[in-house]
Formats: sequence, C-alpha cells, structure tokens
Amino acid sequence: MSHNSFGHLFRVTTWGESHGPAIGCVVDGVPPRLALTEADIQPFLDRRRPGQSKFVTQRQEPDQVRILSGVFEGLTTGTPIALVIENQDQRSKDYGEIKDRFRPGHADLTYELKYGIRDYRGGGRSSARETAMRVAAGAIARRMLGTEVTLRGALVNIGGDAVDRAAWDWAEVERNEFWCPDPAAAARWEAKLLEARKAGSSLGAVIEIVAEGAPPGLGAPVYGKLDAELAGALMSINAVKGVEIGEGFSAAALSGEGNADEMRMEPDGRVRFLSNHAGGILGGISTGQPIVARFAVKPTSSILAPRRAVDKHGQEVEVMTKGRHDPCVGIRAVPVGEAMVACVLADHLLRHRAQNPDAPSQARLPRN
Amino acid sequence: MSHNSFGHLFRVTTWGESHGPAIGCVVDGVPPRLALTEADIQPFLDRRRPGQSKFVTQRQEPDQVRILSGVFEGLTTGTPIALVIENQDQRSKDYGEIKDRFRPGHADLTYELKYGIRDYRGGGRSSARETAMRVAAGAIARRMLGTEVTLRGALVNIGGDAVDRAAWDWAEVERNEFWCPDPAAAARWEAKLLEARKAGSSLGAVIEIVAEGAPPGLGAPVYGKLDAELAGALMSINAVKGVEIGEGFSAAALSGEGNADEMRMEPDGRVRFLSNHAGGILGGISTGQPIVARFAVKPTSSILAPRRAVDKHGQEVEVMTKGRHDPCVGIRAVPVGEAMVACVLADHLLRHRAQNPDAPSQARLPRN
Amino acid sequence: MSHNSFGHLFRVTTWGESHGPAIGCVVDGVPPRLALTEADIQPFLDRRRPGQSKFVTQRQEPDQVRILSGVFEGLTTGTPIALVIENQDQRSKDYGEIKDRFRPGHADLTYELKYGIRDYRGGGRSSARETAMRVAAGAIARRMLGTEVTLRGALVNIGGDAVDRAAWDWAEVERNEFWCPDPAAAARWEAKLLEARKAGSSLGAVIEIVAEGAPPGLGAPVYGKLDAELAGALMSINAVKGVEIGEGFSAAALSGEGNADEMRMEPDGRVRFLSNHAGGILGGISTGQPIVARFAVKPTSSILAPRRAVDKHGQEVEVMTKGRHDPCVGIRAVPVGEAMVACVLADHLLRHRAQNPDAPSQARLPRN
Amino acid sequence: MSHNSFGHLFRVTTWGESHGPAIGCVVDGVPPRLALTEADIQPFLDRRRPGQSKFVTQRQEPDQVRILSGVFEGLTTGTPIALVIENQDQRSKDYGEIKDRFRPGHADLTYELKYGIRDYRGGGRSSARETAMRVAAGAIARRMLGTEVTLRGALVNIGGDAVDRAAWDWAEVERNEFWCPDPAAAARWEAKLLEARKAGSSLGAVIEIVAEGAPPGLGAPVYGKLDAELAGALMSINAVKGVEIGEGFSAAALSGEGNADEMRMEPDGRVRFLSNHAGGILGGISTGQPIVARFAVKPTSSILAPRRAVDKHGQEVEVMTKGRHDPCVGIRAVPVGEAMVACVLADHLLRHRAQNPDAPSQARLPRN
Repeated sequence: MSHNSFGHLFRVTTWGESHGPAIGCVVDGVPPRLALTEADIQPFLDRRRPGQSKFVTQRQEPDQVRILSGVFEGLTTGTPIALVIENQDQRSKDYGEIKDRFRPGHADLTYELKYGIRDYRGGGRSSARETAMRVAAGAIARRMLGTEVTLRGALVNIGGDAVDRAAWDWAEVERNEFWCPDPAAAARWEAKLLEARKAGSSLGAVIEIVAEGAPPGLGAPVYGKLDAELAGALMSINAVKGVEIGEGFSAAALSGEGNADEMRMEPDGRVRFLSNHAGGILGGISTGQPIVARFAVKPTSSILAPRRAVDKHGQEVEVMTKGRHDPCVGIRAVPVGEAMVACVLADHLLRHRAQNPDAPSQARLPRN
Repeated sequence: MSHNSFGHLFRVTTWGESHGPAIGCVVDGVPPRLALTEADIQPFLDRRRPGQSKFVTQRQEPDQVRILSGVFEGLTTGTPIALVIENQDQRSKDYGEIKDRFRPGHADLTYELKYGIRDYRGGGRSSARETAMRVAAGAIARRMLGTEVTLRGALVNIGGDAVDRAAWDWAEVERNEFWCPDPAAAARWEAKLLEARKAGSSLGAVIEIVAEGAPPGLGAPVYGKLDAELAGALMSINAVKGVEIGEGFSAAALSGEGNADEMRMEPDGRVRFLSNHAGGILGGISTGQPIVARFAVKPTSSILAPRRAVDKHGQEVEVMTKGRHDPCVGIRAVPVGEAMVACVLADHLLRHRAQNPDAPSQARLPRN
Repeated sequence: MSHNSFGHLFRVTTWGESHGPAIGCVVDGVPPRLALTEADIQPFLDRRRPGQSKFVTQRQEPDQVRILSGVFEGLTTGTPIALVIENQDQRSKDYGEIKDRFRPGHADLTYELKYGIRDYRGGGRSSARETAMRVAAGAIARRMLGTEVTLRGALVNIGGDAVDRAAWDWAEVERNEFWCPDPAAAARWEAKLLEARKAGSSLGAVIEIVAEGAPPGLGAPVYGKLDAELAGALMSINAVKGVEIGEGFSAAALSGEGNADEMRMEPDGRVRFLSNHAGGILGGISTGQPIVARFAVKPTSSILAPRRAVDKHGQEVEVMTKGRHDPCVGIRAVPVGEAMVACVLADHLLRHRAQNPDAPSQARLPRN
Repeated sequence: MSHNSFGHLFRVTTWGESHGPAIGCVVDGVPPRLALTEADIQPFLDRRRPGQSKFVTQRQEPDQVRILSGVFEGLTTGTPIALVIENQDQRSKDYGEIKDRFRPGHADLTYELKYGIRDYRGGGRSSARETAMRVAAGAIARRMLGTEVTLRGALVNIGGDAVDRAAWDWAEVERNEFWCPDPAAAARWEAKLLEARKAGSSLGAVIEIVAEGAPPGLGAPVYGKLDAELAGALMSINAVKGVEIGEGFSAAALSGEGNADEMRMEPDGRVRFLSNHAGGILGGISTGQPIVARFAVKPTSSILAPRRAVDKHGQEVEVMTKGRHDPCVGIRAVPVGEAMVACVLADHLLRHRAQNPDAPSQARLPRN
C-alpha cells in the first residue's frame, strides 16, 4: 500500500513537489524488450507542458524527461524505469502571502490539518505539476498497449458550454488550444476564456477519453472492475469532481430498453454492438467496444477576486491569487486523463494476461 | 493485489455466487475490543434485503448473517472476521434460456470472453447478491467510525425525476420505500415505478451519501485521495455508471468565485465553511465538513421487452427476462452505497492514524 | 495489505480460530477452467490431519473441506474460491488454566500485549489449526502448477539427529509416520519420540521441500525474489525459526570455488548444472533446477514439565500443559511446508506470465 | 504489488542499475515533522561504501545521497521522500567477457531466461549496488524508530570460523574492518581473507542483527508476522541463503524444556524473560525483548579460478572474474542487514499503531 503509487502490475510511484529540485516517478512491471527512449515520452509531456498558450499557466518549464534506469540500449529490461524532470522555473517569488493562509478550494488547510506542515511553495505536493509524471508514465503505458489501441481525449465542455457531438472531428482536437473536437465550440470557448482571464476568474470543464481497440476481458469482478479503477484513477487528478463511464449520469434518466446495447454478429464472428451506452464495459470487464470515460474538472481555485479565508493562526483573512495560473485547469487535464486511462489499461492488460493467457483478443465467438 | 478485496488496512474480501451454497466475506484489520455481534450487522442487511416491497426483486432471502471468526465473547479480537450468509431461495428454475445467451447490459458476454466459463445461474458472481457482503462489512466499518459519524444515504433521482432539495428531510428517508428525502418525489416515483413494472421496463436512479462528523485529514496525496477511493468504491457497485463528489459535474459550469468555499472562524477555534461545493474534500483530504458523494445507477438490464442479442455459439437471438427482478436497482443500492462509504472512511481512519497519530480530530486551528 | 493474506496474484486469505465454529480461506486469482473438486483437496488435508499417529496431537478432526464458491460444474470459474472446514472436536475442556496465564513459547503474552484480548481456547488464531487452510490452498496451487512440477517434502532432522542423505529414498517418505526419506533415521526417531512423549517433552525438527520441474524465470529482482518470498512464506508457519535455500547456512563455510554451480550444455539445448548449491535460484529467479528450501521448527512449547511464567494480573506462576499436543510439531509441518512452496510458485507463475509471456518454460538456450 | 518495492505503510521502492546514470529510491509513508537531512543518511551510506578497506571491492563511489522531495525546511512533510545517488565510477572497462557469458552463481542466466535481455554492465539491477538505497531508506527508518531502539549488526562467522560469544563486545564492532565483536576472531579473519584474496578465492559469512528497545506488539498473525517479514527482507539481500530468528536452526536440536523462555515479573510491572531463544518474537509478534536475526551470505561468486559455464549462444565456456570485487560480500552486508531490519520495524510500527493505538509500548502488565 502506498499513497503515492498507482496500479498493480503496471505500477507507477510518483514523487516531488512543485518547487523542489525535481519531480519524478518509478514505473515498475513494464515488460522487457520494448523500444523506449526519452523521445517516446517527451511529445506527451510537451502536450501537457505549461506556458504554451494564453489559456494555461505561464510558468515556463521545458519539462525535459530523463530515463535513469530500466532501459538498456534502447530497450526496456523488465526492471523499474525511473524518470526525472528537473524543476527549472521555480520563481523565487515571495510566498509570504500564502505561506500561512489557507486558500479556498486548495489543499492548504487539509495538508496543514493532516500533517501539521506543508511545503506551501506553489502548492507543494498538491500542485498539478505532479501530473507531468502521470503523463510520462502514460507514454510508457501506451507503448505497452501497442498500436492496436487508439487512445484519445477531448475537452467537451467548458463552463457549461458543451460541444456539438454531431460536429465531432478528432482531427480538430489537435488544431485548437482546447483539445476541442468541435471548431464552433472552440471559437466560443476562446471568447469565454479571454473574458474569464480578464476578469481574473476561471471556468470548469468536462473531458472525455476514448480508447478504441482495447481487447475484451480487461477488468475483473468485483473490486478490480475496469470502470471502478478508471473512476479512481480519473478522480485522483487534481480538481476532478466527477467521473462517468459511457452514458454516465444520463443513464439515470433512461429506461431499461433505452439503455440496452443490443448485439448482432459480424460475418467474421465478431460481436457488433448497436450502441454503446455501457461505454465499453459490462460487469466491470471490457467488451471490446470503445471504452468511454468522462470527468469534470472544477474551475481553477486561484482567482483574482478576493475570497474570505482563514490563516494558520486562526485569524480570518481575505485571499486573492496574483501569480500565473490556468484560467481553466481542465485544458491541461486532457493529456493527463489520457495518461491515466492508458495506465489503467496497461495494468489490466497484465492482470488479464496473468490469469487468462488464452482469452481472445477480440470479441469473437465460435460459430458452430 | 486481489480482484475481490477492497480497502487496505480495513480490508474486505468477498466471495460467493448468486446460486452457490453461500456468500461471505472476510474483514481484516478491525481494531480489537469493539463490541460486535450479529445483531449489529443484521439490521443493515435487512435494509438491503430483497423481497421487502413491490419495487424490488421478489427473491426471498432471510439473509441471516453468521460471524465465524474474529469475535470472542462479544468483542473483536483484532483477527480476521469471517461472515457468511447461506443462500436459501435458489429457485431451481430452468436457466436454459440464459445459459448460452448473452443478455444486453449484463456481464454474460464479458465473463464468457474473459474466463471462457461462467456460472450463469442468477448472474453468478456478477449478481447484486454480492453486495449483501458489502453491507455487512459496512456495518463493521460503522462500528469503527463510532457515533460521532452520521452516515446516511438517500435516493435523489429516479428516471430523471429529482427530489426538491428545499424539501429535504432525512426523517422521510426511512418512511417510504425509496429512501427518498422528499415525500412529494416519493409519491411521484411510486406511480412511475408501478407503471414501469407493469410495462416490464425499468428506470435508473441517482443516490447521494452524506457522512457528517468525519474528522479532517482522511485521505492522502496523490493516489490515496479520499475522493479517488470513494469514486472507485462506488463505481464498483453493480450498475453504477457515474460518481460525483460535492458539486460534481455541475462544477464544470461554475466560475472560480462561484465554486469557492469561503471560510470563517468559529469562536471555539473551529473552521466554518460558508458552502460545501467541495463535498468535504480538498486535495484528496477530508476537511471536516460533511462528505458528499453521489452515484448514478443505470436502469435494470433485465426487462420484459425483447432485445436483440447473441449466444455462445455466435447465433443472433432475442432475449427477454421473465424472472423476478428489481424495476429500479438503484433503490437497493442506497444501503450498499452507504456501506462502501463507511468502508472507505474506516480504511482511511486507520491509514491516517498510522502516519499522523497526533493530527486533530476536528478542523480546529490554534489561535495565537 | 492484509495481515491474513498471502501471495499477490494467487492470493490466499485465511480466517478462523482453533475453537471457533469453523476455519476457512478465500483463494483468489486462480485461472478459470481448472478441474477442481473437494476430492482434489481432501487428500492433502488428510496428510496433515491430526490424530493419525501417536506422534501427533490426538485431537480428532475429520477436516472435511467444502468448496463454497468459485467452482461451477467441476471447473474453476476465475472467481474467488472459498473453502471452509467446520471445527468438530472443540473439546469443552476447562481452559481456566491457560485463560489468564502466558505460556512460555506461546503467543499468549504477545497477543495480550498487542490486542488487549485473545481467544485463549486452543491458542485461538495462533493455533496450528490455521495451517489446514494453507494445505487446502496449496492443493489448489498444485493444480495450477500441473503435473510437470513434482513438489515433495521430507523431515530431515529431529532433535539434532539428521537423515543420511546417501540413503535418501522418496518412496520411504510415505511409508513411515515421519515423512522420513531414510528408514534407519525413521527407526531412531521413533524411539526418540516415544521417549520424549513419555517424558512429557518435545523435540525440534528440520523439514526440506524440493520442487522439481518448475520453469526458470520465477521470481524477480529485487523484493519479489523467489527465495525472499519462500523465506517469508516458510517463516510464517507456526514455530518455524529458520529458513534456508540450497546450501543455506553451510554456504557461509564454503569458498567461492566450492559453492559455484558449474554449467554444461545438454545436446538438446538445455543448460545442465553440475551441482545445486544455489537451490535452484540465482538472483532471486529460478534456474529450472530443483528448488530446495529447508526450515527449522522449534520443539513444541506445550510440555509437561512445569515452567516459570506470568499471568494477566502480573503474578508469577508455573505452567505445565496437560492436554493433547504434538511431541514434535515438525512432523505435521511437512505438508504445510509443501503447501507454502506450492502457493509461492503458483503466485510467481502468474506474475512471471504477466510480464514475460514469451519466456521459455525450460532453461534452454538458442544454439547458433 | 511491485517487485521493486518493500514494506507496506513504510514503503520503499528502489530503482537503478550498477552502471546506469544513478540509483535511487522513494520512501513513502514517513510521518511528518521528523527532522531529516542528507547528513542523517550519509553516515550509514559511508559505512556501506565500497573502497574503504582492502577486504571489499575497490570501486570508488563517494555515494553522496541527495534528497529530492518530501523534506521541507529540514522536516519531513508526510509526502514521498525521493533519494538519489549518482553513479560515478562506472569504469568504462570492456564487458565483452561477461556480455554473453553466464557466470556461475550470478543472475546472468536467470535474467536472460526471464527477460531475454539484461544490462550486463556490473550486474545491472542484480548488483549489490542497489543495497545502497536500502541503507539510505534504513537511515530514515531509524529516525522513525527513535533513540529508544538500539539497532546493531555484527559479523559472527566468516568461512565457518565463528566468533566467541563469551568475548562479544559491541564496541569492538566499530574498531575492525569486519564489524566483528570479537577481536580475536577479527585477527583470524584478517589472515584468512588476505589468503583468500591472494588466491582469488572468496568466503561466506554469517551476520547477526540485534534490535533492542523495540516495543512489544510489532507483527501480526498470520502472514504479517514480524519474523516472516524479517526473513523475507533479509533473504532479499544479494547472496543471502539462510535466515534465522533467535535460536534458529539450533532450535531443531533442543527439547521443549531447553527452548522455553521462562518469565518473571520486575518490580515495576515489566515482564522479564530468563532467556531469549525466541529472538524476541512469539506468535509472529515482538515480545519487547531484543529482536535477534541472523543471515548467511554465500561466498562471492566472482572469483579468479576458472569455472565451467555456458554462454548466450548455447556454447560451453570457461569464465573467471578479473575485476574489482569483494573477497567476502558478507562484510558489506552488515549495514544492509541493519537497514532491512530497521525498515521492517518501522513498517510494523505504523501498522501496529493503526490497528492498536492504545497498546502499551513496553511489556508491562497491570498488577492488581
């Protein structure tokens, strides 16, 4: 048991604080002889990297990852892979303001109550900076999943303004600064966020992750369910307040008939579902259909508007955040969400293979 | 690692199939010298028990729990507590219909693809019958939490029809057959469900669990977050498709100002929050405020209307369910949700105590 | 984490006290579609069963195991297998004598200091009765290992009197009451133990377990080493005070040359070792050679001779044990040791397969 | 589950290869507000450091540890502590000789069979270099145990030549190059090892670790036993082939009377044992007496004498080791053994406190 480890057979342990000398992680359980270099990981980090657009924090971090172990002559060896990123832009600003104050929506108060001490610089361990290591681990997980699995994320809602699903275009996702699959929505969001930034305010968001091509059989009854572990994984991302699989909360409003994913047979023996309300998971186990998960990110708590708060000495104070911060942390959560889903799938792939080495890799039935 | 265990220091392992001789669980990690007898567990099982109203499955199970170990002369001994419930009403019906057919919305297909075998009788391991052991374990968890913690659940939405929060009355919850805190909603739901049952249809639901009085400091960065583990726990319940903490998905539509939970000091040194959008958790750690979690349950997949499906032999078939089933499985999920939250809190209480034995039991600050 | 669970992917959780209504275990992670009935488990329990010879405790327990879950129509389903044995001969004797007294060599004092309560009847949880469930789980582990693996144990030393290794005959092991591979030693031990029993004394023993045919590659650097887990597993058996792999403590007296296991090639490409000082494990990973582990069991602490002790009230007392007890608990430890080795191997087989599905099943090298 | 993690609540994950850029570890679960700097860890690393005497490997590594996270202003914060040591003396020697050859007694063959790849430089992951991180983690564990616990190790046997226990003097341990408590033995060993080194040979050793002042109650039935976890921990150290607790294998030769640790009461209410055959552990739980563990280390496998071996291509070869190596790896295993015992005790301290916060810190009984 470890509070800073994630996964079971594909196991990630992260460490590091926002303003410490470095952040890092150890990824254990990776099969041997996978081709892996920093160049396989860096692009994913670059996608998450701060300072790239006006809609995310302006902290400048090159986030150059280094592999310190577990890879030999370009191949994984089966031993733990240590990754490290040195913190560069640890702006030596005056933290006097938040040193003793507990900002609303932040982990300041709870860390203090739990530990009686906290590294307040940039949020310390509670900083979203930790998610860089999730993204790095996710890149390794993707290597394990192979090219059969297409794992993508998109922002589907900012501040209550949702994308038009009829206009969904995955190619668009890489074309705007919001990972938005709907160009019209992206345009609206741009205006919205500029306004929010100007007002020193912030907005929440909803992210959707879709994994296509994952084999059936991932997950297990009853506490190793794939959806249960996806929910835990996504909820562990900073600022996430809700997680859905497939139809999610909308399922509550459906009838049994409306929610049923009917099935037919393909000529080649594969099962075809006529819908995917289940989000690719039945009884906690993947069906072979696209796995669909969504999560809600609250608006950034660091805002310009003064808020009533308390300090370490039990005094009532007002706080407002001046520094560089994301007006919508949900944007940078897209690659993080992808990474978490990749890690969960990689872990379950190993677990499934251990117990069921002969299980089919597709939802295919014998025809006799 | 175990697919059928839950929790870390308070650790529950369940076993059993719907139509096997018995179901049971082992609860490990319970502190010694807690008063515990079957009478402390049975009332919670009785709340979940099938066959009690016309809105839930008519299977008749007395669900009498027996303690087989870990309790001596009415006190826990610190050794594992084994609980068992014998299955009684294993109706010897003809399972020919579902033996080889994969019902939409059920785990039939995924179990078959994963394991190449399944106990099809009543859903086997995927049956909601397993949740009886969660409820039993939850009763032990409640003992550990003590009387300071008030942990209650309510149904807040059936088929898209939500309760009026202004009319919320916890006392009502025990007065109707839906655990509904709003009598007007309960009346509407009764009509709705009678209609659904008559039509052989089913409805989804949303459940809300509230834990008041839990100490601050439960949970931990960054993968042992309280909200992450609550999400995993609740998503592991059969038919659950979404989980929220506090404001949940609604947070996506809020501004940073609107979502901030401002703080003031009580004269006695306690921190008072002016709102609870966070659902009692910041940075993955409890604040001392009420912990609020919600989860969505899909409509029962077993319905009268024929649905297109496939069978074990790769043939296209139609299935319809004739047996006894819940028109709204969400109703019986209320005590199960309570139990899962109780188990997560008990587990985190032990984990918190191990690392932080001197942490305060209330959100209280020194005033100096 | 659980104090009463063992293994990772093949995971055993045991429960029960010596004089409670039953003892049992849950075995999770077993692959599906293995043929398994009670008849596959019972013979191993019968080997461990008390009351079978004059050299072991006379408690009469039929130890009839029942499978309560995880098996359907004679095949495992991949879900947890619950086993239970009802306690029969809970002799309603007067426990007044040991109720408040802390017997030397027993867990009485430590349970009291740790938990402040203990089920003193027959030792409660610390009773060797718990090992019946290890044996039952071991029978399932053997099923997983298959017929390629020959896993056997023998008693090699009682009270300092060792077998003659030149006279080792596995067939002898089943012919005497001591699992002794050397008939001459068995005859000497018989006399020795009769004398010890008459004197109300007891003797220690050393057990050796040999697993032939296990594949190479089991185990992993650096804390999942096969030898490390065997050591933990064997040391967890009641009364065990030492564990060795291969040459064991004798290795300390050897030179590097003397301890080296040289290698040659077989014509078929298999590696042949010229000796097995390593006990089949190098760098924590199995070599494909026989895996050899030994463990030392202390003399039964329950003896007739009065010993100075203390009681619950801090009073100095004398205790002597009158009841039925093994003059040499090491004898019944043989099937238990076999079972623990089987469980460790089964667990590592799954773990190895998860990460290294393409690893060879024999120590065979490409010849090019 | 992780093959490279150790412990449960005090959890250590190590990474790194002998000739990679660095080695490191993450220590999770450390309580907050413990004073900790590199200066608290470095002295223990210096004790283990190579190149310090003519009896250990001449590799020159300053082994300067850096703390990268989890410590703020000199105090632990409760978040994971990352430690790193850069590898300096990665002698760019020609590894051609061992690149494809499987040296007897080394992990070369088993890594190859398991992973199909290995970092052969200096043994890669199987190098004793990894134990530096154990020592570093052990230093943190010692901080947690506090000054009440005196944890020391000594070499008690080299090449079959044991210390005279009557001459045991802990002060001597720091005065010679062997951690030997008996100056006469140290003198004999010096001659012995000079001879072995000259001959290109090597010798095995036995190490004893004693922890005084540890509270009673550490450990738990039945798989979380303190002795079981000590056995696993010590057996996981490179080259260890046997582990004993207290009387160890000698217990097999004792009678029940001879092995009994009788008890008397001290005037202050503490239990006094008249002997310590048990090594401070009964029923898997510490008694409050000194905890005594011993382990045997095989002679260094790297020797000058040519040995028959095989290579990657299935060819028979002869190998002899020319590089810098320890003639007795047991010497440097002393601080490693201490560290492992410290880690196990720290872990169990947390586990014990979680479940039994009110347990007494001394073996003291109420006198009424």
